[in-house]
Amino acid sequence: MSEQAKRPLSYGMIGGGPGAFIGDVHRRAIALDLDSRLVAGVFSRDREASLQTARELFLDESRVYPDYATMARKEAARDDGIDFVVIVTPNVSHFEIAKAFLEAGIHVVCDKPLTTELDDAQALGRLVAERDLLFAVTYTYTGYPAVKKARELVRSGALGRIRFVNAEYPQEWLATRAEADNRQASWRTDPTQSGKSNCVGDIGTHVENMVSYVTGLEIASLSARLDSFVEGRALDDNATIMVNYSGGATGLYWTSQVAVGADNALRIRVFGEKGSIDFRQEDPNYLRYTPIDSPAQILSRGRDDLGERGQSLVRIPSGHPEGYFEAFANIYRTFTGALRKRLAGEPLSDADRDFPNVDDGIQGVRFVTRAVESSASKGAWVEY
Amino acid sequence: MSEQAKRPLSYGMIGGGPGAFIGDVHRRAIALDLDSRLVAGVFSRDREASLQTARELFLDESRVYPDYATMARKEAARDDGIDFVVIVTPNVSHFEIAKAFLEAGIHVVCDKPLTTELDDAQALGRLVAERDLLFAVTYTYTGYPAVKKARELVRSGALGRIRFVNAEYPQEWLATRAEADNRQASWRTDPTQSGKSNCVGDIGTHVENMVSYVTGLEIASLSARLDSFVEGRALDDNATIMVNYSGGATGLYWTSQVAVGADNALRIRVFGEKGSIDFRQEDPNYLRYTPIDSPAQILSRGRDDLGERGQSLVRIPSGHPEGYFEAFANIYRTFTGALRKRLAGEPLSDADRDFPNVDDGIQGVRFVTRAVESSASKGAWVEY
Amino acid sequence: MSEQAKRPLSYGMIGGGPGAFIGDVHRRAIALDLDSRLVAGVFSRDREASLQTARELFLDESRVYPDYATMARKEAARDDGIDFVVIVTPNVSHFEIAKAFLEAGIHVVCDKPLTTELDDAQALGRLVAERDLLFAVTYTYTGYPAVKKARELVRSGALGRIRFVNAEYPQEWLATRAEADNRQASWRTDPTQSGKSNCVGDIGTHVENMVSYVTGLEIASLSARLDSFVEGRALDDNATIMVNYSGGATGLYWTSQVAVGADNALRIRVFGEKGSIDFRQEDPNYLRYTPIDSPAQILSRGRDDLGERGQSLVRIPSGHPEGYFEAFANIYRTFTGALRKRLAGEPLSDADRDFPNVDDGIQGVRFVTRAVESSASKGAWVEY
Amino acid sequence: MSEQAKRPLSYGMIGGGPGAFIGDVHRRAIALDLDSRLVAGVFSRDREASLQTARELFLDESRVYPDYATMARKEAARDDGIDFVVIVTPNVSHFEIAKAFLEAGIHVVCDKPLTTELDDAQALGRLVAERDLLFAVTYTYTGYPAVKKARELVRSGALGRIRFVNAEYPQEWLATRAEADNRQASWRTDPTQSGKSNCVGDIGTHVENMVSYVTGLEIASLSARLDSFVEGRALDDNATIMVNYSGGATGLYWTSQVAVGADNALRIRVFGEKGSIDFRQEDPNYLRYTPIDSPAQILSRGRDDLGERGQSLVRIPSGHPEGYFEAFANIYRTFTGALRKRLAGEPLSDADRDFPNVDDGIQGVRFVTRAVESSASKGAWVEY
Repeated sequence: MSEQAKRPLSYGMIGGGPGAFIGDVHRRAIALDLDSRLVAGVFSRDREASLQTARELFLDESRVYPDYATMARKEAARDDGIDFVVIVTPNVSHFEIAKAFLEAGIHVVCDKPLTTELDDAQALGRLVAERDLLFAVTYTYTGYPAVKKARELVRSGALGRIRFVNAEYPQEWLATRAEADNRQASWRTDPTQSGKSNCVGDIGTHVENMVSYVTGLEIASLSARLDSFVEGRALDDNATIMVNYSGGATGLYWTSQVAVGADNALRIRVFGEKGSIDFRQEDPNYLRYTPIDSPAQILSRGRDDLGERGQSLVRIPSGHPEGYFEAFANIYRTFTGALRKRLAGEPLSDADRDFPNVDDGIQGVRFVTRAVESSASKGAWVEY
Repeated sequence: MSEQAKRPLSYGMIGGGPGAFIGDVHRRAIALDLDSRLVAGVFSRDREASLQTARELFLDESRVYPDYATMARKEAARDDGIDFVVIVTPNVSHFEIAKAFLEAGIHVVCDKPLTTELDDAQALGRLVAERDLLFAVTYTYTGYPAVKKARELVRSGALGRIRFVNAEYPQEWLATRAEADNRQASWRTDPTQSGKSNCVGDIGTHVENMVSYVTGLEIASLSARLDSFVEGRALDDNATIMVNYSGGATGLYWTSQVAVGADNALRIRVFGEKGSIDFRQEDPNYLRYTPIDSPAQILSRGRDDLGERGQSLVRIPSGHPEGYFEAFANIYRTFTGALRKRLAGEPLSDADRDFPNVDDGIQGVRFVTRAVESSASKGAWVEY
Repeated sequence: MSEQAKRPLSYGMIGGGPGAFIGDVHRRAIALDLDSRLVAGVFSRDREASLQTARELFLDESRVYPDYATMARKEAARDDGIDFVVIVTPNVSHFEIAKAFLEAGIHVVCDKPLTTELDDAQALGRLVAERDLLFAVTYTYTGYPAVKKARELVRSGALGRIRFVNAEYPQEWLATRAEADNRQASWRTDPTQSGKSNCVGDIGTHVENMVSYVTGLEIASLSARLDSFVEGRALDDNATIMVNYSGGATGLYWTSQVAVGADNALRIRVFGEKGSIDFRQEDPNYLRYTPIDSPAQILSRGRDDLGERGQSLVRIPSGHPEGYFEAFANIYRTFTGALRKRLAGEPLSDADRDFPNVDDGIQGVRFVTRAVESSASKGAWVEY
Repeated sequence: MSEQAKRPLSYGMIGGGPGAFIGDVHRRAIALDLDSRLVAGVFSRDREASLQTARELFLDESRVYPDYATMARKEAARDDGIDFVVIVTPNVSHFEIAKAFLEAGIHVVCDKPLTTELDDAQALGRLVAERDLLFAVTYTYTGYPAVKKARELVRSGALGRIRFVNAEYPQEWLATRAEADNRQASWRTDPTQSGKSNCVGDIGTHVENMVSYVTGLEIASLSARLDSFVEGRALDDNATIMVNYSGGATGLYWTSQVAVGADNALRIRVFGEKGSIDFRQEDPNYLRYTPIDSPAQILSRGRDDLGERGQSLVRIPSGHPEGYFEAFANIYRTFTGALRKRLAGEPLSDADRDFPNVDDGIQGVRFVTRAVESSASKGAWVEY
């Protein structure tokens, strides 16, 4: 792409109105890399709320639409229409909205989990392939440079053949009946908005994606127990899942929203014949790597060799902490980089495509589906 | 007991000859409290090896016996016979040796697991009751003062009703085929010396005991998967176990000897409605306690209130690290304290009896038995 | 300020061209809060380099000026001229540039240290007062919410009377003669661009500012030893400073750029009669607070009570790490908040003014000046 | 020494009666290695208290003496007299007692600081040389295997030329006027029992010894500021000391007993041209070693290569924490090993002599003396 032709990319957003959490995160993360600008949106089903958010973001109100279908149609028709749309609504609506924009020929970024039904997720997968559009699913945590390094260590054979994976994601925030007065808690624990699972759907999918991304292991079967500890809660708030991978490795996952004392403690440990890695999301600038029978090494983002891919996502020197927004921005940076190449008609390399895509989204929905099935059968082993 | 009458207690040992690990640990731990003296033993089946150890320990050779049966008989017959015996042989021989000393009327301290067969363990339980003797099983890790405090926090209701327990015990030392040239590895991975399980038997029992001790929860059923990752190994070297407790709480245990990067990383986390505790054996002078919606507190042994029982086991001020030997010594200190009271005809309080006993030993063998059963049935849930 | 009237603030930048570090940080940090837009600048003395940066940032080239003086004049004359300017050039030029914009009536944000000469700093102070303009100095690290809480704990009396402060800031990056081929290293170790001190000037000023901000203590005298360990280096790369505060407390500062193994390890510990706090910049989402004779508490940003001021600067829930960019953005958020009020003619509260200002900048230059004087006199105690 | 001839070593003790802290530590540490037995003593100036301790330790009362002079004379005269004496009285009496036993030809272990006057320390040094006796000073903390490794890393050149040392030793325990009702606090803060310094004498000497042992650096001059923060306290309770070493390296020491939140937090960091080490006494099973521009390595006692000397002091596998008693026992193990060789007429190697000796004791007293001198001269630099 020539220097002269460079222009900021433009995007629209569905969701992210007053009181929303993740929509705001998307906007800030995108802003951090100074490359894309929000120009259109439907921020709420409530028109006035939608306009309020638009004004706070200094948007031209002519591009604040009454509903997503109108927006998809009208933006697709503009010469200067949005380059991509960001979907940050509750889980149940992801499918219809994503479908509408794909059908309008617009590239999509969608929050996770992709859908609440596996069929829907697969339908989106087919649509993305047919239309040949870019589609990202924002599994935030694989965006950390240290996670890129973890993946590289596994792929390079530094750990040897992988034997066992222990991954966990405990939180405290639903340890009491928070759904009574917390909007985030309310929709996530409501089957009509969240789908068949709360805990596995919301954070278990991050575990599945993280393990899959770092190790490349494919789940062959699983045995799950979903607990619902808080009285009156319709969906799960704690889950333990045993996993068998193709090829003989095994794994153990735990997710919880009733783990008092845990903030957002996603952690993955991968044990191979020759070494192990240990990544803790709450301390994301470091990766613990231990070769067998040797001292543990603390790899520090920016200081130590994170490999070409990891290093490409580092903005500031070691010891200057990067965090959640930067992990998020790394997904966008990669997505928009690919989009710019696509717009310029250039081919995409593997590194260009290193953002979570619709297939990763489908895997997540499959994981939730199978876990719910197994738990409903008292933990029976379910083929994947 | 009057001050004048006080004399050092005397003990004998079965096992702990040249190259042994745990026998040496017992002797040092006992020595640390300056209260009991080793005076008799059978340190090895090899007489010369036995005498070598006796000489290194400055023992009178007349009390180094050819076999445990002779020792039990002769020491029982002496006026100044041993006050108790310590059994530190491989698992398969615990039963016969313990039986012999109990039948001779001698109090017993036995390493874990108590036996390799549940029937044998239960038989020992009956014998202890019949003879009214003291019997300790050296589950080291509940000896830490911080673990006493953890138990007290649960019992006091500070955590509220317990919902979930996550306990793990990973090690690296058997990640390769160490049994070829390491005596400790060799007997532990050999079914004829170790029993039906290596990993669950050796370290899984510590997990079971720790959870049981801290929480008081009783296992109702479990689903286990025992892995054997190192080629040519007959017994398990990794295991994941889901647990249902009576009363609705659930748990998840992981033990491994192929976890590269882990030294001896026993950890227990207990989550209740109102708080949680987190204890890591490798950092045993501290206990993390988090009340719901409040800052985590780092309780420091010696500094902070560990409660009456915990405090009674602290020898040095905070920041002067106590470790494994002191945890071990705490079991002995409690056991010999109880023994002195028994010898003086005094009644024993709950605190006096706060050492792992034959019932705890039976529970450990039951746990191994059930885990092996479940794993043999592809992880079927097994009633306890 | 009425909702209708809200518009994005606009700013210009001096410095921050190709290869620059801190200019890029300022731009991203400002972008994170979606409130201000870069519209003008002189990014380099080299016109072509300046234009290159402008194009990368999608700027209108008509507002890329040949030099700062022209920019100050022309922007001041525009109806839609910049609301504030950001100065991110090497230390020696801060004074002249800041002076030019202040004289043009434009609000200023200047990187630290404010100037290289105390007289110049004081002159800026007078100018700010005369013109009644807002002036921020970007001491990044006091922007963390945990630091706000630390300050509040001191002010509230929770620590009692402060006795002792230990603050340190070690880095590794200049442990070898990096100035040969690293642009950042080159100008910082060059007296003609950096001033009388490298290490104390660059990072010692952060220590001084952090201690002053958190404790409110005023330095009465100091004794400094500046070392220059790397051969051929004209300025200091390591320094130890003893401090006496007014009122009887004492302090100890250490800064180093040759501390192999340290990334950017700013840490401050404050010890009072009744408690202490411990903040480590590399782990900025947590604050360790220990009341006397009590367990240490780990306060977690987002989880625990950081007080009104700290809480107002939290963007995402606990366990979702915020980092360096967010600390930086907190300074800008406060500065632009104050600027909006000023533009609307509203009075500023103490919280509105809670960003490092020209007086803090002057204190930093005084600190460098006195430290250099003391060290030149073999560590003699110098009145402040 | 032939196997047949082996007998337990016997020792006597001066001090360590009811309520004493360090005497009890010595006894337990000695017991841990099962090699030496307590047979004689003067545990208190109060005869009845002395006998009480003797009875608790199962001692023959005929070897409980009325005073140290009598004991030195009578034990020296016995065929089976003590092999060595352990002196654990308050500082001011160390000199006279040590002198008496040396003059009686008995080997000595003395707690630190060696004496309260430099002249006395030097006199002991001369006496040790004249009588050719073994003399150990129990600087506990250099006994840790990780500290042996730290020393080896420096000596091997792995760190390159040493540039800077930062060592600190903060405690909380004297943050209030504890001397009112705490026996340990009372004598340590009393000049008539403790000497010219409390804080530097008690814990500053550990810092000096640790740095000297690990780095081999010799102090050329120092500048000290001793603070006394608690009202009514005659001696120092906090101190900051700048050090210049021969050869150009510099150092910074901080010791405090008013550091609320610190338990016993001795830490040493050594920075060389090519690497650094970081040892924290409260986490003594690990040593952080960072080669320049490389990941930090966490060396784990028992797991990783601690070198021949370090490894020789490891009793249990990695992850089984050793602590303060084992560090103490390592000094005794080395001392009694040397003593056994001496008794057998064998020569001593450097490793045999690797325990803190009378020269180390003298250096400690010199350090206290010079620090007090400098502080009395408002921190003037004092030649060493």
